[in-house]
Amino acid sequence: MLNDNDTLPFAREEYAERLKRTRMVMQERQLDALVITEPANMFYLTGYDAWSFYVPQAVIVDLTEDLPVWFGREQDGNCARATTFLPESQLFLYSDDHVQAADRHPMQLLGTWLKDRGYASRHIGVEMGAFYYTARAHAELVRALPDARFQDAELLVNWVRAVKSPAEIRYLKEAGEIAERMMSRAVSVAAPGVRECDLVAEIYHAQMKGTEAFGGVYSTSQPHIGAGRRANSPHLTWRDTPLGNDAPINMEFAGCRFRYHGPIGRTIYLGRPPQRYLDLAAAVIEGLESALATVRPGVTCEDVEAAWRATVSRWGFTKNSRAGYSIGIGYPPTWGERTMSLRPGDRTALQANMAFHLMPAIWVGDTGVTITQSFHVTESGYEPLTRLPRELIVKN
Amino acid sequence: MLNDNDTLPFAREEYAERLKRTRMVMQERQLDALVITEPANMFYLTGYDAWSFYVPQAVIVDLTEDLPVWFGREQDGNCARATTFLPESQLFLYSDDHVQAADRHPMQLLGTWLKDRGYASRHIGVEMGAFYYTARAHAELVRALPDARFQDAELLVNWVRAVKSPAEIRYLKEAGEIAERMMSRAVSVAAPGVRECDLVAEIYHAQMKGTEAFGGVYSTSQPHIGAGRRANSPHLTWRDTPLGNDAPINMEFAGCRFRYHGPIGRTIYLGRPPQRYLDLAAAVIEGLESALATVRPGVTCEDVEAAWRATVSRWGFTKNSRAGYSIGIGYPPTWGERTMSLRPGDRTALQANMAFHLMPAIWVGDTGVTITQSFHVTESGYEPLTRLPRELIVKN
Repeated sequence: MLNDNDTLPFAREEYAERLKRTRMVMQERQLDALVITEPANMFYLTGYDAWSFYVPQAVIVDLTEDLPVWFGREQDGNCARATTFLPESQLFLYSDDHVQAADRHPMQLLGTWLKDRGYASRHIGVEMGAFYYTARAHAELVRALPDARFQDAELLVNWVRAVKSPAEIRYLKEAGEIAERMMSRAVSVAAPGVRECDLVAEIYHAQMKGTEAFGGVYSTSQPHIGAGRRANSPHLTWRDTPLGNDAPINMEFAGCRFRYHGPIGRTIYLGRPPQRYLDLAAAVIEGLESALATVRPGVTCEDVEAAWRATVSRWGFTKNSRAGYSIGIGYPPTWGERTMSLRPGDRTALQANMAFHLMPAIWVGDTGVTITQSFHVTESGYEPLTRLPRELIVKN
Repeated sequence: MLNDNDTLPFAREEYAERLKRTRMVMQERQLDALVITEPANMFYLTGYDAWSFYVPQAVIVDLTEDLPVWFGREQDGNCARATTFLPESQLFLYSDDHVQAADRHPMQLLGTWLKDRGYASRHIGVEMGAFYYTARAHAELVRALPDARFQDAELLVNWVRAVKSPAEIRYLKEAGEIAERMMSRAVSVAAPGVRECDLVAEIYHAQMKGTEAFGGVYSTSQPHIGAGRRANSPHLTWRDTPLGNDAPINMEFAGCRFRYHGPIGRTIYLGRPPQRYLDLAAAVIEGLESALATVRPGVTCEDVEAAWRATVSRWGFTKNSRAGYSIGIGYPPTWGERTMSLRPGDRTALQANMAFHLMPAIWVGDTGVTITQSFHVTESGYEPLTRLPRELIVKN
């Protein structure tokens, strides 16, 4: 047990520390209140964990009250009671006639509530580009608080999340262990004639079963499967057609433990790959190794990418998309933290206990290779979250 | 085969008809262009189907061009080529340095593009409250087109989707058939001592395997599982603790076929339910039957709910949330269409080939019952999408 409450994945002190660091940034930015709508940030600050982000909800943090407030649908109040450490006084619930209604919106209630608490003309941070903070939600809040000064506080909490605690690293590793099992199952099942959907059934099964010691939960995203001629596309859904022979299957998915994600990508080639395809895989793997070799505190995100780029260039390949991104807590639609990207121009210096998915897949012409590595930064280098060999998996 | 293209779930004529009906509404509302960002609407109009909605993307419909334009990340261009009927001329791709970048945003490019096409001071519809149309996306588009007149066109396409074609009904039924198999598997596996995550592993497995004739794909949402004392909450995630004895398990999930959802909810009671719980279940089932008995074209959404409400009131129960909603195409985070709700005040008249999830779960105090029915409206009544008996499942 990490804590004295079986519903909380972290000790109360850790939540207090998170709030403290969030408030420090709020003070730096002269924010009086922060309206947090990104589900991952709500989970980070309060423990709230439910599939209710399809209706407006928020966590409100200010500088005066000790505890944040959870704002959401009345029906989901029990979800807040079950998963957060917040007492009843910190729950602000709205009635169901505000759900998906043309003539009213929950943010009108939140605006009035903020006004009543003295925020009518204060500085309020909102997450402008966050998932589920819609254009209408913002417009309603602004209309309800015409004298408030709104500031874009997108990623404020995401950046607070960047460096992980020991307990968070533990969950990331457990998520990685689940991802290994998912991939191992996929490798053992994939064969010509197996329907793509039946392969994916086994991947999901392994994901939820997890290990004997701990189970898995849903990850942010479907398993990305690109088989046969669809191996040239990153984000397609599987079909119910049988896997072909002499064709690659690109797979990218993640294990998830308490919303922490350990992603993995691998390519299985059914049959005998042509030399050109072997070269592509060799370039990706060599690039991956050269990028990983650079990882240590102080090195920048773009440095890691530069090592990758230099290596694959020597093989004659280029990639026009970023080579990776930071990871941690995730809710649909993505396990990326949306802060750091491994790409030119991102000069963020790596710190110990940051975590990344180095995802240098290449899609060229009519095919592609997906071999990736998630890791966390250590004092002297990195430690992988998944321990499967970085290789092209050939099944003859 | 429904069509001559193995990547398209519908005939080209059906897409043309959808576009035509969308443009009719645009003309009524004097909209010159429509920027569609809700993934379900993008899929409906173009076939686009990929897990790329975590970055800005859109389908643009105007009144002059024959075909819509797909706007998205360069990396996802192949997803558009694989899943839509659009020729290369209709793809407008943005480079990867616009992804999750502080200093630039894809909507700036879309704004310029619209300006170049003569929409600088025209009427442009946007989906203000749609998922993934963030406050920032809207702000950037407005900034790029300061003289345009924006109109909230949220739900415009959702309403066009309300009445289903025969091909859509077929997919809804196939989705329902998958949901039946998921539930049957859950019923056969659930037992005291089985870890919740292991139960869920079987549900996912059944979902993806589908039937011998067709496989399943991911649904919009995790299976909602509320076991034991968590049976009082609608949207929690399962845990890895073993199922207890003498306790209910509330389950709600959906099968999915070409993004069409057939949801189902059932409660399994492990052990012998107390009389009070049997009464609650009996009230829910009787309410469900009385609501279904009202369903036929011309009856309103609130009529259906009123029948439910009257019945459960006689048992002494109330429910503060809506009793159901319309369904069809779905992407995370919800399979609801967000148009019609079965609740007081919704006077929309039912029409043949509309589809609903009648979801009159009740959560009372420390427990709850989830027994639901999805259906489509027929000329004379309704036809269920799932054919499992509407009953409390007791496993002793």
